Amino acid sequence: MPESATTHPDVLEKLVSLCKRRGFIFQSSEIYGGTGSVWDYGPLGVELKKNLKDRWWRSMVRARDDIEGLDAAILMHPRVWEASGHVSGFVDPLVDCRHCKKRFRADDPRIKGEPGTPEAQCPSCGMKGTLSAPRLFNLMFKTFMGPVEDTASIVYLRPETAQGIYVNFLNVQQATRQKVPFGIAQIGKAFRNEITPGNFIFRTREFEQMEMQFFVEPGTDAHWFEYWKEQRMQWHRSLGLDPARLAFHQHTKEELAHYARAAFDIQFDFGGTLGFQEIEGVHNRGDYDLSRHQEFSGKKLEYFDQPNNRRYLPVVIETSVGADRTTLALLVNAYREEEVPGEAEGRTVLGFHPALAPIKAGIFPLVKKDGMPEMATRLANDLRPHFPVFYDESGAIGRRYRRQDEIGTPFGITVDGQSVADGTVTVRDRDTLKQERVSADRLREYLRERIEP
Amino acid sequence: MPESATTHPDVLEKLVSLCKRRGFIFQSSEIYGGTGSVWDYGPLGVELKKNLKDRWWRSMVRARDDIEGLDAAILMHPRVWEASGHVSGFVDPLVDCRHCKKRFRADDPRIKGEPGTPEAQCPSCGMKGTLSAPRLFNLMFKTFMGPVEDTASIVYLRPETAQGIYVNFLNVQQATRQKVPFGIAQIGKAFRNEITPGNFIFRTREFEQMEMQFFVEPGTDAHWFEYWKEQRMQWHRSLGLDPARLAFHQHTKEELAHYARAAFDIQFDFGGTLGFQEIEGVHNRGDYDLSRHQEFSGKKLEYFDQPNNRRYLPVVIETSVGADRTTLALLVNAYREEEVPGEAEGRTVLGFHPALAPIKAGIFPLVKKDGMPEMATRLANDLRPHFPVFYDESGAIGRRYRRQDEIGTPFGITVDGQSVADGTVTVRDRDTLKQERVSADRLREYLRERIEP
Repeated sequence: MPESATTHPDVLEKLVSLCKRRGFIFQSSEIYGGTGSVWDYGPLGVELKKNLKDRWWRSMVRARDDIEGLDAAILMHPRVWEASGHVSGFVDPLVDCRHCKKRFRADDPRIKGEPGTPEAQCPSCGMKGTLSAPRLFNLMFKTFMGPVEDTASIVYLRPETAQGIYVNFLNVQQATRQKVPFGIAQIGKAFRNEITPGNFIFRTREFEQMEMQFFVEPGTDAHWFEYWKEQRMQWHRSLGLDPARLAFHQHTKEELAHYARAAFDIQFDFGGTLGFQEIEGVHNRGDYDLSRHQEFSGKKLEYFDQPNNRRYLPVVIETSVGADRTTLALLVNAYREEEVPGEAEGRTVLGFHPALAPIKAGIFPLVKKDGMPEMATRLANDLRPHFPVFYDESGAIGRRYRRQDEIGTPFGITVDGQSVADGTVTVRDRDTLKQERVSADRLREYLRERIEP
Repeated sequence: MPESATTHPDVLEKLVSLCKRRGFIFQSSEIYGGTGSVWDYGPLGVELKKNLKDRWWRSMVRARDDIEGLDAAILMHPRVWEASGHVSGFVDPLVDCRHCKKRFRADDPRIKGEPGTPEAQCPSCGMKGTLSAPRLFNLMFKTFMGPVEDTASIVYLRPETAQGIYVNFLNVQQATRQKVPFGIAQIGKAFRNEITPGNFIFRTREFEQMEMQFFVEPGTDAHWFEYWKEQRMQWHRSLGLDPARLAFHQHTKEELAHYARAAFDIQFDFGGTLGFQEIEGVHNRGDYDLSRHQEFSGKKLEYFDQPNNRRYLPVVIETSVGADRTTLALLVNAYREEEVPGEAEGRTVLGFHPALAPIKAGIFPLVKKDGMPEMATRLANDLRPHFPVFYDESGAIGRRYRRQDEIGTPFGITVDGQSVADGTVTVRDRDTLKQERVSADRLREYLRERIEP
């Protein structure tokens, strides 16, 4: 629920179109009419999302000595989801129309009257008294492992990555000899058979999470909860997300899961009707998860605190980011249309942080002669092993700049007559539009300094 | 099928144990007794596999201007699998025992007699005449999308990533303005409900593929097939895989898919009974895939060759690597047990290529006093943002070296009395065991030069 009203326009529709046209995001199986609320990342989208995921991995795993990485499988033992509470609790109430056979969420605002009563009216066929009373519908995708399709062979596509971390807690702790407090981090796909997904890649049936579970000594959890709350907000700001569009939302008693001691969402203002929405959750989960898995598996999951010679179940502080939602936040945050001083035509810009931009530099010969294409091609080939660059020699130079602005390329490098003579090139900054002459020999270092901070 | 007999010992069992103990690979949902032929990557395994995937992505996508990246979803439109032939053709013949209800592959060597005849004997309960005639069993995992579980809502977990590339062929080509010949590359999970998976992470039900589909003009496909065959073999050698353990295997007419014009496997010798097995396939698929999707979707998928003003369906050269199999090849290739000159105890070494090793350097104070731990900690903190390093101050120095050897860390950096006095440290090479004194200031550059080639 948004804490405050948005003042930003709705740019989702424009983004969907730009993302398809330029190769960020395509509708999945589009030539077959699409797959419901599933999306494919195209050439630019896969780089944008990979840069985001790599940045999270570097900051959470590689740059710290107290967090270990993990990549647990999507298919887990079905008992995991009994222990986690998903089999019984991960449900939505649905109603059926006996007449037209359609299904609806029980809280669908188009339903008139109380479902299950003779007054209730079906929003699809309009019949009265045909809607069933609400029944619980589990949101986990299920499948069958092995040759026989029966209850004993049901497995689920994980609806969250976190359980893969909990069941491996002792394996990781013993292999790495980590001492509490320490964390386990993982990036991976999860699946939810949502009844009302939507808003582009905001809520999808197949999505990617970046989760870190931090295991702490009971009694120290309030401290670590505050620590991670601040760290994670700081991280989102470091992506270049506008600080004014980021907010904390504290879960009320009604929103809080029964086992949770505290929970804050980090929200981003997506503008328009979507407004402020969760992109990350920071949760104090108590020892619920480890104690449930201990109970259901019959295996002790206690941590042995050697110096104090005692065993205990650690408390878990969870930080859980939606990789697709954050990618959408990056797109929404970066999108702007603006006039260009001295030019009749305006431009569309994706003002990505240079470290996240899918392509770091466009490389353009001013004209297609006088050795300029050769020098520009050589430059592109020299830079390509180090950064993704795009060589473009077709059309007017202003048009080529605008094509790169629209996909968020931070630097435009032009090879002109002077370049061929003295070995310098002009570098145009996407945001300030200022041009600077730089020696071609220094270009790689020049770009590295501006891209990697 | 192996081309030649292996001369290498079977190290799989030792690797399974080392991988669990040191945190490379755990059995999935182990505390619940495991999930059949599904594995989780632990802290070291996830780094090893990520280094492998990033290396593939850099060489296939980022370092080239003629290949575009993609990340298509796992859940695709079900018609995709009718077009691809998987619904009808991706099947194994199975037989049931009417008595004990067990299922077997029809070619199970333990079955005595012809299944379906009164002579056939069940390998499980031993009854005669109870085995059914073989029936076809589809290897795709299926699930239901949306609230209703019926035939209309069936979707499959993709059994290969390639189809996500074919259905996006024109989307990618038009967004990027690439001209044929060009390729589309993708890394992602795929799922097969195998009846007889096994051999650790060699054949698993959930696995990861690194696939590149190269679209070429008909008539040029034989040339490009040869090109990619050589390129891909070269790449596997660049990982440090022993050239003597790598071989091509040409598909015979019987092995060749009906639409394929040519196919070679790149095999690695896993040793023991497994021997030479496929880690990558290079296939000339003709225009089968695009023409089938064109037919089933009713959408034209022809490429428009502007200079020659003609339209055609490109021919596809596919290169398909198993990321988990190649990770296993890296482990098998790297594993060795050896004596250490002048020491009573031998050592186990994983001799990974430094660029692929999960941890690049172990950092050790020689003793826990005289400023050595402080200097070593400082060094570790300076290096950690640039490379994964591991600080270890516990136990004898020889033991600490051996712990790093066993996980494949290429460099051991020791801070001793002289270090504190003159700012130099010793760097021990994992393979040669030679030690070199290096100025601590130069260490980052020293390591970078040796890790990144």
